Amino acid sequence: MAERAGFRLQAEAARVVPGSPSRVALVTGASRGYGRALCLALAREGARCLALIARDGAQLEETAEACRRLSKDLQCEHFAGDLGKLAELESLLEPVLRYLADAVASCGGGGICELLVLHNSGSLGRMDYVQNLGAQETGAAVELNLTGVMVLTQALLQRFGPCAKGGEASLRIRVVNISSLLALQAMPCWSLYATVKAARDMYMKSLAADAKSCGFDVRTLSWAPGPMQTEMLQEVIDTCPDPEVRQQFQDMQSQGKLVEVDSSVAKLVRLLREDAYLSGAHIDYYDV
Amino acid sequence: MAERAGFRLQAEAARVVPGSPSRVALVTGASRGYGRALCLALAREGARCLALIARDGAQLEETAEACRRLSKDLQCEHFAGDLGKLAELESLLEPVLRYLADAVASCGGGGICELLVLHNSGSLGRMDYVQNLGAQETGAAVELNLTGVMVLTQALLQRFGPCAKGGEASLRIRVVNISSLLALQAMPCWSLYATVKAARDMYMKSLAADAKSCGFDVRTLSWAPGPMQTEMLQEVIDTCPDPEVRQQFQDMQSQGKLVEVDSSVAKLVRLLREDAYLSGAHIDYYDV
Repeated sequence: MAERAGFRLQAEAARVVPGSPSRVALVTGASRGYGRALCLALAREGARCLALIARDGAQLEETAEACRRLSKDLQCEHFAGDLGKLAELESLLEPVLRYLADAVASCGGGGICELLVLHNSGSLGRMDYVQNLGAQETGAAVELNLTGVMVLTQALLQRFGPCAKGGEASLRIRVVNISSLLALQAMPCWSLYATVKAARDMYMKSLAADAKSCGFDVRTLSWAPGPMQTEMLQEVIDTCPDPEVRQQFQDMQSQGKLVEVDSSVAKLVRLLREDAYLSGAHIDYYDV
Repeated sequence: MAERAGFRLQAEAARVVPGSPSRVALVTGASRGYGRALCLALAREGARCLALIARDGAQLEETAEACRRLSKDLQCEHFAGDLGKLAELESLLEPVLRYLADAVASCGGGGICELLVLHNSGSLGRMDYVQNLGAQETGAAVELNLTGVMVLTQALLQRFGPCAKGGEASLRIRVVNISSLLALQAMPCWSLYATVKAARDMYMKSLAADAKSCGFDVRTLSWAPGPMQTEMLQEVIDTCPDPEVRQQFQDMQSQGKLVEVDSSVAKLVRLLREDAYLSGAHIDYYDV
């Protein structure tokens, strides 16, 4: 019996990359594309527990199934909901927080436990010149891509942060914002997208400053994943009214200059494993 | 009679700085502090027409009266309302747009007519560590300081931009965002404020990129006015829970290192008069 238990512990240890923490992760926008690829990579890296959020429940279930197939000891639950509906956010988050709390409570086992939050959710919003944009689409883009991210982060910090009661003493928290080159550099017709990405970057910097001031083990990263062949890129080419912007992305596509999703995810996962980036930094795919 | 008319024209010309445009300006957050000082400076500079927005109607009327005393030919109207209440924004903006349209229609007179938009409105929001902030105060801060600014700008561009019907051909549009050092640099407990200021900066850059791509005569500026002895600064010292941040601002106050409101306004007005800044730039009081 003791032998079997010993064998099982050894087998579990083999699944975990040496030096890596016992990881509990929350991924938003997890149903497809970059979010799904991230979940699969975390499962492969030996994450202990994943919580997935996105609007499309059926696609989320596909992501969860694919993660479970990669790692039979992985706990993986999904929570379908719209992070842009602030009035419903509290009831969406309540079961997520409960699930994460259980996972965190049984995590670590004497080693380091990490709660990783990956803000991958987001929408392109309508691509157009400022004067053609309306109040409703502007409000919706800001709520989903910015306010939702802030409120979710605040709720997680409140529950798992250093002042929370009953928290795991050795819990470390990492918050990753999937950002964009557009957070730094403006282009015609991208105002909705660029504005919220710049805001998210500064929110991550602010959280890093908070943590540093208080000595919390919370670090943040804004990750620009590079221009990838995703549905979003196709949407840019199909809908952007600015001919130069359209041409630029079409050229990248036809000249094979787009970044592979898996290559981008691999670089991010390595950054997270090494855990040596400057907290609050904006790091681009081409920087590392 | 001809002599009197001629004399009057001469007197009017003397009021206007040589080379300056005939200016119609909209100022938000105009009821007090930096906004009021800006309105007075624009009146002194010979603005033709001012539209003032803020929440407090009585204080707005005081600003308007003070402006009219400085320049008897100035048209100055005020519109009390809350730019953070998006559901009411359309009805707040409707009379503002009508008033500005009349002013623009009779502006220029063969010379340049400028529509200047000064986004001075804004709130500090609660100063606290991210984990102590709630959903409601976060949503309110984002709506007032970011979404409201975007929707107002879009409405103005739609009405007066180059594609608008019946616009004055020679109209030039300048949009100024009152920004902050916090738009670039994070500090503990400033997440709500810094996030929206960074977002506004990028929105201005995006609008500049739109205009450049289309050949519009629209230019934007993000102006960081410097640390001033305003009610906002006192609020920081009184409410910020981070002792180092409080100390830093107290030290600036006690060591006389704060910027005078009128000095900051004068630098901004000079930038606007010279109209030579790079469109979309973030310029700080200490840069010029």
